[in-house]
Amino acid sequence: MKNYKITIQYDGTRYNGWQRLGNTQNTIQGKIEDVLSRMVGHSVEIHGSGRTDKGVHACGQVANFKINTEFSASEIKDYLNRYLPEDIAVIDACEVHERFHSRLCVKSKTYIYRIWNSDVPDVFRHKYMYTVEDKLDFDAMKKTAEYMLGTHDFSGFSSLKKHKKSTVRTIYKLTVDKQNDEIIITVKGNGFLYNMVRIISGTILEAGLGLRTPESVLEIFESKTREMAGKTLPAKGLMLLEVDYGED
Amino acid sequence: MKNYKITIQYDGTRYNGWQRLGNTQNTIQGKIEDVLSRMVGHSVEIHGSGRTDKGVHACGQVANFKINTEFSASEIKDYLNRYLPEDIAVIDACEVHERFHSRLCVKSKTYIYRIWNSDVPDVFRHKYMYTVEDKLDFDAMKKTAEYMLGTHDFSGFSSLKKHKKSTVRTIYKLTVDKQNDEIIITVKGNGFLYNMVRIISGTILEAGLGLRTPESVLEIFESKTREMAGKTLPAKGLMLLEVDYGED
Repeated sequence: MKNYKITIQYDGTRYNGWQRLGNTQNTIQGKIEDVLSRMVGHSVEIHGSGRTDKGVHACGQVANFKINTEFSASEIKDYLNRYLPEDIAVIDACEVHERFHSRLCVKSKTYIYRIWNSDVPDVFRHKYMYTVEDKLDFDAMKKTAEYMLGTHDFSGFSSLKKHKKSTVRTIYKLTVDKQNDEIIITVKGNGFLYNMVRIISGTILEAGLGLRTPESVLEIFESKTREMAGKTLPAKGLMLLEVDYGED
Repeated sequence: MKNYKITIQYDGTRYNGWQRLGNTQNTIQGKIEDVLSRMVGHSVEIHGSGRTDKGVHACGQVANFKINTEFSASEIKDYLNRYLPEDIAVIDACEVHERFHSRLCVKSKTYIYRIWNSDVPDVFRHKYMYTVEDKLDFDAMKKTAEYMLGTHDFSGFSSLKKHKKSTVRTIYKLTVDKQNDEIIITVKGNGFLYNMVRIISGTILEAGLGLRTPESVLEIFESKTREMAGKTLPAKGLMLLEVDYGED
C-alpha cells in the first residue's frame, strides 16, 4: 500500500461541508472519494486534516489515503483535477511515509476570516466575505485579538455544549489586517474547537462595532461560557488557509 | 432634469450582457433600469458607455441617465446597491453636466483579458479567467502585442462581416503581464470593434502557443480579413476595467 497526501482547494459555497457522514450527500470528501474510487476501481476512503463546515472554503486542506496503485502522485493529481467539479481542485499530491496521517500529525492550522467593510458590495468576492457596513474601530479589533494569543481554555469559544476532551488550545498567531475595504483575521493555532474561529472573529468584530471592550476577552476565558463571547459569524467568510505538519 | 453618472461593477456570468434590446431578458442594463424606475416611480432609461457581451464582466462600466428627483447621487447609489442582485454593484454615483453622455463622451476604454495558465484550476476565480494548460511562450506574446500598438485598420480583428463606419482604431496601451500562473492582457484604446479585445487576445495567445509568429499581426492588418487573426476567446476572461472621459 502506498500512502498519498493531497492538498485541496475548494469553494465551499455549494457543499455540505468536508465530511461525508452517513447519508450526507454533496460533501467535498465524498466528491474526492468518488473520483478516486473510480480511478482505482474500488472504494477509497480519504482522511482529512479535519472537517470544514457547510459553506466554509479552503485554500490548503490536506487529506491522505492508502491505495495499491501504479499511478504516480502527479497522475493522481491530474486525474482528480480532470474529473472533480470546477470548485474543487487538488493543488499538490505526493507520496508520504506510511505513518503520515492528515489529522493525527497536524502541528498547526491557519484559518482566515474575511470581512468586507463597505456599503458597496464586491461583486467578485462576496461569496468569500462577510459584509459589515458599519464603521469599525480597527484598533479595538487588533487589541481584542491580542488578548486571545497564547494558551487558554477556549470552551467559551465553542458551539459544543459539552466537551469530552481538553478545551485548552494554543493560538500562535492572531492578526487583524486591513486591505482597503477588506479586513482579514488570521488565526494560527495547534487546534480548534467547534466554530472556534468564527466565534473568535465574531468577538473581534463586536469590539470593532463598540459592542464590547478588548478586555472582555478575559471574562470569556474566566467564565468559560459561550454566552459571554461574540456571535458565530457566517461560514462564507471562513477559509482554511493551510495545515502545517512541521516538515520544513 | 438632473444628469447622473454611475460607475458599475458586475459579474457577467449570469447575464445576457449589458444591453436591454427588445425582449432580451436578464441584462445588466435592464436590472439597473428596473430598480431606478421603481425608485423614481416611472420608467427610466440609462445609457451605457457601450455594450458588454453575454458573460463579460466589468470593474468600471459607466452609464448616465436624466431624471427629475430629490434624491442625491449618494442616495441613488445606496438605493441601487440595496435592491440590485449581489453580482451587480454601483461603486460611484455623481451628478454631471447636462451634456455628459456615457457613450458619446468616451475618450478611451481599458479592458483586461485574463488567462489562467496551469493544469490546476483556480477554484475561486475560474469564472473570470480562461484556462490554458499548455506551456506558453511569454516573450512571443509580448512581442505580438507590441505590433498592435498605435493606429491601424482593425477590421481583421472584428467579428462583424460588414462595417458601415470606419474600422480604424488607436491602441494606446497593450501589455501582457504575468502574476504567477495568471496572464493578464491589458488593452487601452479609443474604441473597439465587435469582439476586438477577444480576438486580439486570441491572436496573442496563438503566438504564445507557437501557432503563429508575432510578425503575423502585420499580415492581419494588411489583409483586413478576420480569418487571418486568432480565435475569439471566451467571454468569461474579459473584463471592462475602466472608461476614461479625460476628466483628470
